[in-house]
Amino acid sequence: MIKGIAASSGIAIGRAFVLPSWNWDLNEENISVTDFAKEFERLYEGVQISKHEISNIKKEFNEVIGSEESKIFDVHLAILDDPVFMDEIQGIIKRQYKVAEVAVKEAMDHFTNMFDLLDDEYMRERALDIKDVGNRLLKHLLGTPEVTLPQDNQPFILVAKELSPSQLAHLNPSHVEGILTMAGGKTSHSAIMARALGIPSVLGLEGKSEITIETGDFIVLDGDEGSVYVNPNDEIVQAYNLKKQTWLEKQKSLQKIINVPATTLDGKEIQLDININSQNDVDFALSYDLSGVGLFRSEYLYMDRDYFPSEEEQLKAYKNVVKKMGSKPIIIRTLDIGGDKQLDYVTFPEEDNPFLGYRAIRFLLDQKDIFKTQLKAILRASAMGNVKIMYPMISSIEEIRKANYILEQAKEELHEKGYDFNPNIEIGIMIEVPSAVAIADLLAQEVDFFSIGTNDLIQYVLAVDRMNEHIADFYEPFHPAVIRMLKQTVDAAKANQIDISVCGEMAGDFNATSIFIGLGIHKLSMSSQSILQVKERVLSIYEADCKQMIDEILLCKTSQEITELVKKMNDKTNIS
Amino acid sequence: MIKGIAASSGIAIGRAFVLPSWNWDLNEENISVTDFAKEFERLYEGVQISKHEISNIKKEFNEVIGSEESKIFDVHLAILDDPVFMDEIQGIIKRQYKVAEVAVKEAMDHFTNMFDLLDDEYMRERALDIKDVGNRLLKHLLGTPEVTLPQDNQPFILVAKELSPSQLAHLNPSHVEGILTMAGGKTSHSAIMARALGIPSVLGLEGKSEITIETGDFIVLDGDEGSVYVNPNDEIVQAYNLKKQTWLEKQKSLQKIINVPATTLDGKEIQLDININSQNDVDFALSYDLSGVGLFRSEYLYMDRDYFPSEEEQLKAYKNVVKKMGSKPIIIRTLDIGGDKQLDYVTFPEEDNPFLGYRAIRFLLDQKDIFKTQLKAILRASAMGNVKIMYPMISSIEEIRKANYILEQAKEELHEKGYDFNPNIEIGIMIEVPSAVAIADLLAQEVDFFSIGTNDLIQYVLAVDRMNEHIADFYEPFHPAVIRMLKQTVDAAKANQIDISVCGEMAGDFNATSIFIGLGIHKLSMSSQSILQVKERVLSIYEADCKQMIDEILLCKTSQEITELVKKMNDKTNIS
Repeated sequence: MIKGIAASSGIAIGRAFVLPSWNWDLNEENISVTDFAKEFERLYEGVQISKHEISNIKKEFNEVIGSEESKIFDVHLAILDDPVFMDEIQGIIKRQYKVAEVAVKEAMDHFTNMFDLLDDEYMRERALDIKDVGNRLLKHLLGTPEVTLPQDNQPFILVAKELSPSQLAHLNPSHVEGILTMAGGKTSHSAIMARALGIPSVLGLEGKSEITIETGDFIVLDGDEGSVYVNPNDEIVQAYNLKKQTWLEKQKSLQKIINVPATTLDGKEIQLDININSQNDVDFALSYDLSGVGLFRSEYLYMDRDYFPSEEEQLKAYKNVVKKMGSKPIIIRTLDIGGDKQLDYVTFPEEDNPFLGYRAIRFLLDQKDIFKTQLKAILRASAMGNVKIMYPMISSIEEIRKANYILEQAKEELHEKGYDFNPNIEIGIMIEVPSAVAIADLLAQEVDFFSIGTNDLIQYVLAVDRMNEHIADFYEPFHPAVIRMLKQTVDAAKANQIDISVCGEMAGDFNATSIFIGLGIHKLSMSSQSILQVKERVLSIYEADCKQMIDEILLCKTSQEITELVKKMNDKTNIS
Repeated sequence: MIKGIAASSGIAIGRAFVLPSWNWDLNEENISVTDFAKEFERLYEGVQISKHEISNIKKEFNEVIGSEESKIFDVHLAILDDPVFMDEIQGIIKRQYKVAEVAVKEAMDHFTNMFDLLDDEYMRERALDIKDVGNRLLKHLLGTPEVTLPQDNQPFILVAKELSPSQLAHLNPSHVEGILTMAGGKTSHSAIMARALGIPSVLGLEGKSEITIETGDFIVLDGDEGSVYVNPNDEIVQAYNLKKQTWLEKQKSLQKIINVPATTLDGKEIQLDININSQNDVDFALSYDLSGVGLFRSEYLYMDRDYFPSEEEQLKAYKNVVKKMGSKPIIIRTLDIGGDKQLDYVTFPEEDNPFLGYRAIRFLLDQKDIFKTQLKAILRASAMGNVKIMYPMISSIEEIRKANYILEQAKEELHEKGYDFNPNIEIGIMIEVPSAVAIADLLAQEVDFFSIGTNDLIQYVLAVDRMNEHIADFYEPFHPAVIRMLKQTVDAAKANQIDISVCGEMAGDFNATSIFIGLGIHKLSMSSQSILQVKERVLSIYEADCKQMIDEILLCKTSQEITELVKKMNDKTNIS
């Protein structure tokens, strides 16, 4: 068994197809001075064809996979327009009398070696981009064909040293059972794209084993655990076949509870809401008869474009959601940008620790016009449905007051123009900074609702970047400090009779459902994939048991003790 | 008035001397093929002389300023040994038939342009290093003299686009009143070195003003506020002269209380300890008759070397401190590395948010042998004096238990070898992660003392990187959440009758002294520069007043309200 980085969920079982590395047979003979023009022309043509080709891939990709992922190809187009890269190539032709393909190869090697030297994951990814573009250019200069995949229509597990976006774009997902690469980390294109394509994938196997995988090897790959078996024994294959089967059956059986209300065995109704990134995600909410949108991540309206969306553009998007949801509540979180989320058209400061930096409400209070434009669009949408506003990353009362001041300006401006809006629109805040928990009693007096963002909250409370694989063991949602802070927040909300919900990743973890119910949290908002499993859990427990469990949990000293209590509780249910 | 980055404390008033940029007059004629050997030899000689020169500067610098700062020159020496850089130069000579100086200039421009392109502060600093080394090499190839500073022995304010370490190393600090640069950020060499030289300095003026500073301009510079006045009116000059004068007088008057015990007006004794980085800092503690070492940052023993210090090496350092301190307590914090502190000989993972990453106790529990070696050295030192151990960045009980387990192993191994140590050595922890505050009552049952690290605690509680200039306003030590968490920690310590102190930057802020006393914290550990001002504050307040103020503070909703209460309290004293 080899342990790699779990990059895309699911189990794949099948034969390996090992992708050969690109290998060029170059003519190293020098050109004569009179050939300059010819080589320059060849280079120019190669660049044009490459650009055309990349644009086409981008377009296809955009339609099939999504605009977010297809942005990778903009990077590639930019490389072909980069004067530093092109000057290097032309310089080699001109000064060293070399043919275009040799110049491209040398320039490509020069830059990729340099970027590799920098020993930085981001830079190594850029090196991979240059290699991808350079190889495409070489292909056109030399006429070498694309690598051919097996043509027999048998599904296979693709194994490669590294996969470029171009290579991935040519895959037919229905033939690729799984993806294994030697290189690759969490920010790698391969990881992002495998997830987007829904192909189980394990990356970063380099140096993890002595075993070399060859075409035809039988592979079992678990994209959730990050484990890979090469030519395993029957026992393992059977176990994983069973696991895969069970998973498929589970998915099927869950469909039965779609229209069952989420009520505990002792009759406590739990409100399950959905987190959405765009208006398209709403259809799911409708088909699952959900009670509302607990978190509309408005930042996605701002991504994949070249400038800030106007009030009208935003209004249109919000209106579409309102129309579909009718009178059901929709909580729109104002632009939560910075940290690991950037906008192409905004220059964010270079930060050593972006998660502790210029982001979310800090950005909005600094960029008041952008903030006000968004608030106006949300306000106008509030005339048509049950729309609420939520401010992200609040750490003090002053921030709420400053934000509300801008909101009042927005209302005034709309009023002057004669636009309709709900003057009593509800205002809530994300509870995700430890200071917000420490003063939750004060904050509760200023707003209409709290929504706990567990991802960031746990990250800050434990001082653990949840994306950092080197300290993954320290990221513990069941840490006693986390549970205490959840309780402190709930108690403050209840004492002030305001609404409380959870919208972080933990809300969608069915193992945590009993904790939330025990704490008295009756609203959970999560991604669509988690809804049914959480509902299944709700249907199989007693609220009274959950409350009793929380009393015991609050006496625990360690995460392990808490985990055991939760496990005991979960084992009581009949869920397999 | 221009606002830059406050880089080094103090006020400077005087005439500007603008450092001209290096400008080379290069002979662009090509060499002939037969001259290769000659150019290579010239290059080799230039490199040797440059290395020799840099080594000398490093040595001088090491003696005058300290080994930490002189490491900059190791980077420069490494550049001259870097095959990528040297191959580029030799390649240009060989393939393009250019003389050595042109090749050096082109290679230098090539790399610096590239690094500049990357739009990353760290890389820009590296570009500056290459420029510095390249210019030194050019100087030797072309025989151009060093830039000459004014020779009339009049102090001046040095103004430059950017300052290289070489340039800074040649400054006579007694002639340089202040330093102003257009470029430069918080990690810049200029900032570090100006602080080390004790020269008031403001950096990063680029784009902050239309004004061009010329040699002879009259400048007022405030290195605490980051403000710069060019040819200001008499009023401003007078105001700053007064400010400077007051500051000097203040320093003088504080000397009078060196031997006065730190006791409040109503008789509460406050223990003022010192934070030290090395054995050399102890002399100060002795001359000021301080009560102990509240924080020995042992990581400095690990820096500026090529491998981990052995048990014996560490023992020697700890022993020296123990000898000097006699029976006074010495709290040694175990290796607190990672985050913004790296070791040359350890490859730390690339992290997106190092402050939320693999650091301190996380590193130690992962590198058990290194941890055990240190614990053994500390244990052996404990046989000779009042030595205590403090674990950094504790976020859970499990970490304490794991660390103590390694400590027990260390004791056992020492016992087997027949070494003496204090078997009941006191164990404490830093309280600097929010989760540690949330479970302070549980942690207090496991250790002998708490020391609150305010720098990190505030950073995590508010989710604000304190080094990030873009969100500096959000870093608020007087935030109600911070005060509440301090109180929660103190209460837990008192309830369990264990010692509590504060060793973060806030302990040395005399404006916060009344808060700590009010909270019931009677031990503060700080850097030597802060001791007298804090003591002056202790001498001028009543403990009873502080307690009453805290009762009021705990009702406050905002940082502003708290700041006003503290100000009111401070205004009651007669301190100017």
